[in-house]
Amino acid sequence: MNTGFKPMEMAFALAEQAALAGEVPVGAVIVRDGALVAADRNRMRASGDPTAHAEMLAIRAALAKIGSGRLAQCDLYVTLEPCTMCAGAIAHTRLRRVYYGAEDPKGGAIDNGVRFFSQPTCHHAPEVVGGIAEEKAAQMLRKFFAERR
Amino acid sequence: MNTGFKPMEMAFALAEQAALAGEVPVGAVIVRDGALVAADRNRMRASGDPTAHAEMLAIRAALAKIGSGRLAQCDLYVTLEPCTMCAGAIAHTRLRRVYYGAEDPKGGAIDNGVRFFSQPTCHHAPEVVGGIAEEKAAQMLRKFFAERR
Repeated sequence: MNTGFKPMEMAFALAEQAALAGEVPVGAVIVRDGALVAADRNRMRASGDPTAHAEMLAIRAALAKIGSGRLAQCDLYVTLEPCTMCAGAIAHTRLRRVYYGAEDPKGGAIDNGVRFFSQPTCHHAPEVVGGIAEEKAAQMLRKFFAERR
Repeated sequence: MNTGFKPMEMAFALAEQAALAGEVPVGAVIVRDGALVAADRNRMRASGDPTAHAEMLAIRAALAKIGSGRLAQCDLYVTLEPCTMCAGAIAHTRLRRVYYGAEDPKGGAIDNGVRFFSQPTCHHAPEVVGGIAEEKAAQMLRKFFAERR
């Protein structure tokens, strides 16, 4: 079934909304069986909560919607490589697959930093597809920070 | 000023409440200038949210109370060594100091696992005082899991 729903495009649209709101532009979308479960964007600044990353908010919203305490049938699409906190949350909730836009050498925790999913203390490692739309995602972040310098 | 407030004792009392509620017994207390800011315990099971660790809940409650978007003047007392997700949240919120009860070789991320605060992608490392009441904390966890096996 092709519903025409493109999760990564939605994640980028959410990232652009974040930038317009003065937030670091990251968007996250959680999908099951090709259908939207939950989605959000960075809200650290507006909420005064530095843990309000797009992934954390989308994960909590997806858990509330699904009600099983796990996201084992779900995939996460996110415009930037998740950080250490979010990688931990992804493992805890047993997300099946993670698709991310740009690598984040400074703060990423999947293919950079602590590479959490390869560590023995990681109890669940999702499949990872990284570097999707690398240039688009990186450009969006560069533009955001350049305008603020 | 000695108010008689003992944060680690409160964290242990919260951990015991967690065990009584069928949750893995972990409690967390956040303190500023010797006074309670926020406290919580594990609520993963009741909330159906595997990210509802004591530390995450206490951190968000402290942020909501303080309103500055940072916990730089605050210290965290927690009965068990924080996991990777919680270590990430501690760094993001710039907590000043972390006091923890028992080390967690299986899931800890401070003195075990990814040792996040020693990594170059960690943007803020709190002071850490680990292994406080190691035996008490470890015993509480062993008892909890033994009763469920």
